[in-house]
Amino acid sequence: MHRPAFVIWFTGFSGAGKSTVAGELARELSRRGVDFEVLDGDEVREHLSKGLGFSREDRDTNIRRIGWVARTLAKHGCVAVCPVISPYRATRDEIRASCAFGGEPRFVEVHLRVPLDVCEARDVKGLYRKARAGEIRGFTGIDDPYEEPLRPEVVCETHRESVAESAARILARCEELGFLPPGPPAP
Amino acid sequence: MHRPAFVIWFTGFSGAGKSTVAGELARELSRRGVDFEVLDGDEVREHLSKGLGFSREDRDTNIRRIGWVARTLAKHGCVAVCPVISPYRATRDEIRASCAFGGEPRFVEVHLRVPLDVCEARDVKGLYRKARAGEIRGFTGIDDPYEEPLRPEVVCETHRESVAESAARILARCEELGFLPPGPPAP
Repeated sequence: MHRPAFVIWFTGFSGAGKSTVAGELARELSRRGVDFEVLDGDEVREHLSKGLGFSREDRDTNIRRIGWVARTLAKHGCVAVCPVISPYRATRDEIRASCAFGGEPRFVEVHLRVPLDVCEARDVKGLYRKARAGEIRGFTGIDDPYEEPLRPEVVCETHRESVAESAARILARCEELGFLPPGPPAP
Repeated sequence: MHRPAFVIWFTGFSGAGKSTVAGELARELSRRGVDFEVLDGDEVREHLSKGLGFSREDRDTNIRRIGWVARTLAKHGCVAVCPVISPYRATRDEIRASCAFGGEPRFVEVHLRVPLDVCEARDVKGLYRKARAGEIRGFTGIDDPYEEPLRPEVVCETHRESVAESAARILARCEELGFLPPGPPAP
């Protein structure tokens, strides 16, 4: 049996940089030889939640499924990296609680704290435009709430720091929590 | 990164002994120090497929989700043990195809080949009675088809051999396929 790994859970608005920072983090974990899996909200939806919409209930169902898979992977020694908007605090806290092994919480909540107007100006996928035009309903930040984490392990402000800086701070925090051994020097 | 593990996929009628044999197998894997996870069809349904029914489409969706989680676990070095009725051949074959790593298939299909009348006589969960009474529709073997595997890695006839014998034969086949090292002698 492996020692449990842990879950790195990214939360924040669409366009805050979750997948980008997760991708950078994944490269660094790979470089360190750490076993990991990225469970991207949109991709996992295809496998686990086809047919679900974006109502509060459907979102929660999708998020809980990702959380369950993440927890199961972590239990078996694989670091689960989850970039998921996950707008509701109670649901995130529920997943955090499920990611405790032998009473020890192994959950790193990373809040991508980027102002909505910055995310909307980026509008990488053109979703904000559609949400403003009423073509998408229940869009987080526009007509659906986002509940900020109260005590996230890491806060990243991707409008004020580079992707590499965000990823480095997350890794440093994982080391500090004892979840990762100190990493090798950057190449 | 871990070397990929593999998937042990049990298929057969309700009452054929899938969960029982999987449980015995799990005890032996545990004794050997092999990292594994049992993804039981009914339990996983609760986490991944609440709200889905037993139509062909809904069953397939549930089975594909289990397959996706099993594949992901196996990819990370955890043996996934899946007792799931999984009545349709094409869907099982699709999951088999997805469980190839570096071109090498790592999928052990175990057919619990037990005559329907034996399973119905056992009726552990009282489901056959309900299906016969028309209280459950689309029940495999009663009013929904079961497509036998054409080339399963293992066939277990739990009405002719003990649970321990079935489990031992599955383990022997996994060793033969090179998926498990030869086990220690039984205690």
